[in-house]
Amino acid sequence: MSAFDRDSLADLALVDHHCHGVTRQELDLDGIDALLSEGGSPAPGLTNFDTALGLSVRRHCSPVLDLGPNAAAADYAARRAELGADEVNRRLLRASHTDMFLVDTGFRGGELLSPAELADAAGGTAREIVRLEAVAESLAAAGAEPGEFPDRYAEALRATVSATSAVGVKSVAAYRGGLHFDPAAPARQEVKAAAELWLERGPGADGWRLDDPVLTRALLWCAVELALPIQFHTGFGDPDLRLRRANPVLLSDFIAAVPARVPIMLLHCYPYHREAAYLAAVHPHVHLDLGLTLNFVGPSRAGALLAEVLELAPFGKLLYSSDAFGLAELYCVSALVFRRSLVGLLDERVASGEWSAADAARLAAMIGSGNAARVYGLS
Amino acid sequence: MSAFDRDSLADLALVDHHCHGVTRQELDLDGIDALLSEGGSPAPGLTNFDTALGLSVRRHCSPVLDLGPNAAAADYAARRAELGADEVNRRLLRASHTDMFLVDTGFRGGELLSPAELADAAGGTAREIVRLEAVAESLAAAGAEPGEFPDRYAEALRATVSATSAVGVKSVAAYRGGLHFDPAAPARQEVKAAAELWLERGPGADGWRLDDPVLTRALLWCAVELALPIQFHTGFGDPDLRLRRANPVLLSDFIAAVPARVPIMLLHCYPYHREAAYLAAVHPHVHLDLGLTLNFVGPSRAGALLAEVLELAPFGKLLYSSDAFGLAELYCVSALVFRRSLVGLLDERVASGEWSAADAARLAAMIGSGNAARVYGLS
Amino acid sequence: MSAFDRDSLADLALVDHHCHGVTRQELDLDGIDALLSEGGSPAPGLTNFDTALGLSVRRHCSPVLDLGPNAAAADYAARRAELGADEVNRRLLRASHTDMFLVDTGFRGGELLSPAELADAAGGTAREIVRLEAVAESLAAAGAEPGEFPDRYAEALRATVSATSAVGVKSVAAYRGGLHFDPAAPARQEVKAAAELWLERGPGADGWRLDDPVLTRALLWCAVELALPIQFHTGFGDPDLRLRRANPVLLSDFIAAVPARVPIMLLHCYPYHREAAYLAAVHPHVHLDLGLTLNFVGPSRAGALLAEVLELAPFGKLLYSSDAFGLAELYCVSALVFRRSLVGLLDERVASGEWSAADAARLAAMIGSGNAARVYGLS
Repeated sequence: MSAFDRDSLADLALVDHHCHGVTRQELDLDGIDALLSEGGSPAPGLTNFDTALGLSVRRHCSPVLDLGPNAAAADYAARRAELGADEVNRRLLRASHTDMFLVDTGFRGGELLSPAELADAAGGTAREIVRLEAVAESLAAAGAEPGEFPDRYAEALRATVSATSAVGVKSVAAYRGGLHFDPAAPARQEVKAAAELWLERGPGADGWRLDDPVLTRALLWCAVELALPIQFHTGFGDPDLRLRRANPVLLSDFIAAVPARVPIMLLHCYPYHREAAYLAAVHPHVHLDLGLTLNFVGPSRAGALLAEVLELAPFGKLLYSSDAFGLAELYCVSALVFRRSLVGLLDERVASGEWSAADAARLAAMIGSGNAARVYGLS
Repeated sequence: MSAFDRDSLADLALVDHHCHGVTRQELDLDGIDALLSEGGSPAPGLTNFDTALGLSVRRHCSPVLDLGPNAAAADYAARRAELGADEVNRRLLRASHTDMFLVDTGFRGGELLSPAELADAAGGTAREIVRLEAVAESLAAAGAEPGEFPDRYAEALRATVSATSAVGVKSVAAYRGGLHFDPAAPARQEVKAAAELWLERGPGADGWRLDDPVLTRALLWCAVELALPIQFHTGFGDPDLRLRRANPVLLSDFIAAVPARVPIMLLHCYPYHREAAYLAAVHPHVHLDLGLTLNFVGPSRAGALLAEVLELAPFGKLLYSSDAFGLAELYCVSALVFRRSLVGLLDERVASGEWSAADAARLAAMIGSGNAARVYGLS
Repeated sequence: MSAFDRDSLADLALVDHHCHGVTRQELDLDGIDALLSEGGSPAPGLTNFDTALGLSVRRHCSPVLDLGPNAAAADYAARRAELGADEVNRRLLRASHTDMFLVDTGFRGGELLSPAELADAAGGTAREIVRLEAVAESLAAAGAEPGEFPDRYAEALRATVSATSAVGVKSVAAYRGGLHFDPAAPARQEVKAAAELWLERGPGADGWRLDDPVLTRALLWCAVELALPIQFHTGFGDPDLRLRRANPVLLSDFIAAVPARVPIMLLHCYPYHREAAYLAAVHPHVHLDLGLTLNFVGPSRAGALLAEVLELAPFGKLLYSSDAFGLAELYCVSALVFRRSLVGLLDERVASGEWSAADAARLAAMIGSGNAARVYGLS
């Protein structure tokens, strides 16, 4: 493409480098409502439809289900039930025009479409991302011996990556103590002692949950050995998270300690996306996305956030992701919001005479899919 | 209202859920200047009129006093003196078209119009907000016995709330050590010991000042018992404050510890308003406003800030307040800036086809007054 | 100037109150690329030309070198080589139309044009800023006795300021441990002990590097004695820096401890510029700039950042600087971006009826040069 063409970018190829599966369940109004917020069900008397995301779903997903734009939430839920979950998922996923999905299967994976099912419903392809903590938790559930934990974990991670042909790994350290962990690899004896205590403590009401800071570090340094891209949840998330401990700049010393051949992928980042962009600007191996931020804030604000992150982020370091979980609507809205805001931003800069049309088209392709293809080695 | 109508929203009903009184004093140029900044009088050779707020006052209050827009500061002060404080207060307060004021009477209340006088001058109604620290300081000034302090405080708080028919309470913990306090309720013995030390220490040059972290927590947990909304100063304020310790996310653990029936009201929040909006998005009982931020930044920036806070804040969680203190001008500018920026934001989203006119009108009514009415139980 | 005139502001007088020298070297494509980022050379396969700054250089500097706008990076480098460094420096510096430069000579000064050479090439004037740490490092290199260090440092600082007729000093405490240092002046014995340890430790591979927190404080309190403006690097910089420790609000207690006759100049500040603006709003002696932020983010975003900082920053407290280092392109782009974004912001506010044209012109002159002239006592 030698010139910038707004229309041709309406179908900009997208690699969604971080997402989860879509629920197989038939959802009623309350079920949809609860999946519209990281906080779950709204306070009594309120609805999550009265958020930027809720209004976007009513605006942009209603027509995909043959309703007029901005259908009432109850009408939307009724139409959804009428069509059935399979058809709704198929329609909304295809409406996202996403070419490839990199799927983190480590969170409530059993309730959700598998990567292959997701790809099939969407008419795209999928690859897997292995969640570091989930591998450790499976090992614990399988009855690992404390003394063998360090070796067994490294083996299990390697085996899982190999079995799933995973293209990257993911850490939820932000949720499990925070990102201000000691950047150094823990000593073998330390890991053994921590594993002993953790395994002795046993699972909680929701099963095994790896939250020991020494083990968190041990997992990360095992991941470093693989030299696959390591995704980090950073920035906002559900109420479990302590936002200040999810600031990506807390990873600075870890980033500096990791060899530059290991890509570090900062996910979401908001409201610390300018800080994340700085890290991407000064560290060769740091990349970032805005993840679920863009669908949560909606089309009226996504352009502003993309502009903020591109203040410092090199264009070769920004990727697309939806972080969509559960609701197929999130894939649809996310892709629409991302494409529209990116094209709007480029269009404005070309129109003002700042950038050439050729540069704008080239940068759009990098951000939409080229950077992901390069970093994850996708074909 | 079934359609969005910019003009009809020009008189959007407003509940100002956090403000202070207006000074009775006749103010000269220096007196006005000093009340235009949280820093007080400007540096030598400078004037607080050369700020966004100062320019807004000259632009929007001058016509209320029969001057042309952007009158020179000296002319403005001269006209103010000519009309006299009573008339100036009446004109500027009425120009704000505020329906109801929730007045925090705990700071320099003696110099200011009482809630009833404020309501009368403004042609609206007023209800009271009790400042937690002020009740403790009154108790100390009245000679409370250290050993009885915990019980006496709970009684005094209940009595003050009852005597004033207060609809909420306010904490200035941000100014008294910061928001990173231990979230747990302190033990009775701890409170007694802290009260002993504090009472022994005696008042400072400006009177009693509750700044002990254990007592701060004791006051808050007494307030939790009342289940009234608890307002927290967060974000910027005067130079006494250490901004980093006023970040609302420092309240995360306290928020999680407080039962969801107790509304937590985050005031001002700037420049941490995106972090505050996250808290409101994931915790059912957290609400927020931009408070004095909007009048300080002025009409050219208020829309941008409202847009930032509404990236994540649910529309059922955002309220209006002026935090106006002393100068009647602050009420006038605040209401004008708030209405204009809210209507501008909604108008843009309706015009772009994102939101329906009906939704926009409904959300405007919630933010202007409906959310406050629901949370504070106002009729 | 009694009315706002966009065109006349195109040549708004500028004092660049914080910059470095320009390299004398002939630069090839890789040499230019490495100077376009605070991170140095880009990651393999990427180029720093694919950043907001890189695109600005191609857009705005190409015509200064007789190329069309948005010349390819390789063509740009070829033309630069053809013209030679002297001619390129002269052209780009003159294109910045900067009236006066305050030059920090303390970082790699030997490779760079001296202040006099810079002024000569640019057709302007220059004054010097003394870097506090550089004076200490020179003293160490010259073999200072530990026991005499405190006295010798005070003498050396005074002598350097006097010899260079410096108008201010600069601290890089943000890089040397961070801005969260103990605000109090260290005791004489403490300084002696710290000097002993530091001098004993000796220089590193890159020479002497003052990073002891006690000595950092000692230097600052020597500077306070001189009562010259003290510039602080704050906010983003190269990968050596830990961003969270460069937040200007960490200076709050130091600011409160320093007598108000000593101006504190917060440089760059991004992404903590709103926090810096708060400090400028409430402390009479605090001033700020956006420094290298504006050229890094480029013309499409500079206006947004200027608007953000002017939310709270008094107009008498904001200054212009480029922080340009090495590449003459940075002077050219910085001045263009600053002028254009400032004029755009003022124009919008005059056009919307918020500000008078006379106020806008007056404030532009303050920000462009008047504030710097007042604070540094420039004639």
